[in-house]
Amino acid sequence: MNHRIPRARAGVVLLLICAFVALSGGNAVQGSPAGDEPLASWNDTGARSSIVAFVEAVTTPESPAFVAPADRIAVFDNDGTLWAEQPMYFQVFFAIDRIRVLAPQHPEWKDQEPFASVLRGDLQSALAGGEHALLEMIMATHAGMTTAEFEDIVEDWVKTARHPQTGRLYTEMVYQPMLELLGYLRANGFRTYIVSGGGVEFIRPWAERVYGIPPEQVIGSRVKTRYELRDGRPVLARLPDVEFVDDKEGKPVGIHAQIGRRPLAAFGNSDGDLQMLQWTAAGDGARFCCYIHHDDAGREWAYDRVSAIGRLDKGLDEALARGWTVVSMKDDWRVIHPPASE
Amino acid sequence: MNHRIPRARAGVVLLLICAFVALSGGNAVQGSPAGDEPLASWNDTGARSSIVAFVEAVTTPESPAFVAPADRIAVFDNDGTLWAEQPMYFQVFFAIDRIRVLAPQHPEWKDQEPFASVLRGDLQSALAGGEHALLEMIMATHAGMTTAEFEDIVEDWVKTARHPQTGRLYTEMVYQPMLELLGYLRANGFRTYIVSGGGVEFIRPWAERVYGIPPEQVIGSRVKTRYELRDGRPVLARLPDVEFVDDKEGKPVGIHAQIGRRPLAAFGNSDGDLQMLQWTAAGDGARFCCYIHHDDAGREWAYDRVSAIGRLDKGLDEALARGWTVVSMKDDWRVIHPPASE
Repeated sequence: MNHRIPRARAGVVLLLICAFVALSGGNAVQGSPAGDEPLASWNDTGARSSIVAFVEAVTTPESPAFVAPADRIAVFDNDGTLWAEQPMYFQVFFAIDRIRVLAPQHPEWKDQEPFASVLRGDLQSALAGGEHALLEMIMATHAGMTTAEFEDIVEDWVKTARHPQTGRLYTEMVYQPMLELLGYLRANGFRTYIVSGGGVEFIRPWAERVYGIPPEQVIGSRVKTRYELRDGRPVLARLPDVEFVDDKEGKPVGIHAQIGRRPLAAFGNSDGDLQMLQWTAAGDGARFCCYIHHDDAGREWAYDRVSAIGRLDKGLDEALARGWTVVSMKDDWRVIHPPASE
Repeated sequence: MNHRIPRARAGVVLLLICAFVALSGGNAVQGSPAGDEPLASWNDTGARSSIVAFVEAVTTPESPAFVAPADRIAVFDNDGTLWAEQPMYFQVFFAIDRIRVLAPQHPEWKDQEPFASVLRGDLQSALAGGEHALLEMIMATHAGMTTAEFEDIVEDWVKTARHPQTGRLYTEMVYQPMLELLGYLRANGFRTYIVSGGGVEFIRPWAERVYGIPPEQVIGSRVKTRYELRDGRPVLARLPDVEFVDDKEGKPVGIHAQIGRRPLAAFGNSDGDLQMLQWTAAGDGARFCCYIHHDDAGREWAYDRVSAIGRLDKGLDEALARGWTVVSMKDDWRVIHPPASE
């Protein structure tokens, strides 16, 4: 397999760097189902009020801040904003599971890092190889098939794979208050977009079912694809070559390329979302920028300024300085996750 | 200016190659305004019937070919399909006009090809430099500003620039029957997308006003952009470096990246659209693939298999072999363009 790894794009790896994150952290708590009222899982605190006040301002025709529905674009980071991201990005768990599935076809992996360590169950050693090791893992599992085949692989995985600490399906690691927020915004004429550093094709297969977000409203990192006729039938082949990294400076770039409109509201949880929030805030008229702050060690995980995953440091400073809304998961959310299946 | 021209992407230039196209061709004829009936500017011929039959099949709930509105995606090439493309792609006229505007800031252009020839009004010599010359012209006029600045430049140009042969505004060189088709499809729950080899940011500023197609439904070729803070204010700088060529094999790639759904219907006019039509046709259930055939030398231009611009050769063979709809502009369209302003 031809692994072309453009230096300039190695940033994708930063996204996924999860080495040495201690498998510590609290357990998720099952939330009780939300009622019919909007934002039912949000406590009646300042965060909820600021969201409601903004939505009312931009949707009330008599309001000076009124915005036509076509421009009511709300963008959401995924990892750490719509679903959890600890002890590492869930897409990395997917890559690890895929390495195990594919191992019989790759006998050479037994002696080849990082695959050998993954197969021994020694994740820490696997990830000790740093960016290069992680990119090897991603490319070995995310390329070499058609887009349709990859979609099936992701769908199958996401239906059964479970979080190693909570035992929940990964799609049950979503945040109930954010599901309600997505619905509340859509009920008010917003279109909700995901703008994720994760792979767009890793998210699309389940985003509509889980978040109500259709494929055309998912923006993410991408590998290159190539159009081919196979036995006269067209396919898009996924290549082991990074096409676009939708993180940090890439987020406004991706938003502009795909939507061509500036968002009215943006929600993130890490420094990787800061440029998206800055880009949103720089628009004319009322804009809403919001950080989800992981400060709930009891019900979820508590991390911010020094976390390897989901670091929120510069972004927190800027949010505080500019008066952006900072949601305390501990204080502002009545529950964290929807009820689990089991 | 740092002109990085990746060889692999030089294909963008093919898009824009317009050298030596004789300034021949017929004059556009003013169409009378369409009535209220759908597809009023279409003659009652087989092409119109095939469109109506398809739309009824996929929108009638009892029909075995019924398709939910979310999957009613129709994609349209722009140059030669929604508006004219002779004697050269209108975006090249834009580049030429911009070179004239920018010339005072570039005294060196007086002695530098292809700019010197453009400034002398000798287009044929300017384009004699082939791909490289054209890419120089495009990059000198499409990069080096922010996305917001470029949008303003395009909007100003498109409001006043006129076609050298017909004297119409370029936006009046659109095809009245296609405007009606866009509206007819939308009235039937379709979302209409442009998928153009032209620049996405060259089309977005006027696509909603002219075609009713919002920015997020325009897919096109792109230069790279870079997020920057200028005096603390975020901008996206347009770089003289090709990011994506949305032509030929690039069209299905662009559709998949931006929409993530396979189109239900696809409309093009050249071999550059063939892969988009193949990709559309390969979906399950009923699909509609259609070529607009420029065969009307009297009211527009007649060209197909050997044209430098908008060549339709392999695509025509495939359309005939597979029974795709081929629209004869001469026989199937009652009028070509909407009334001109003057």
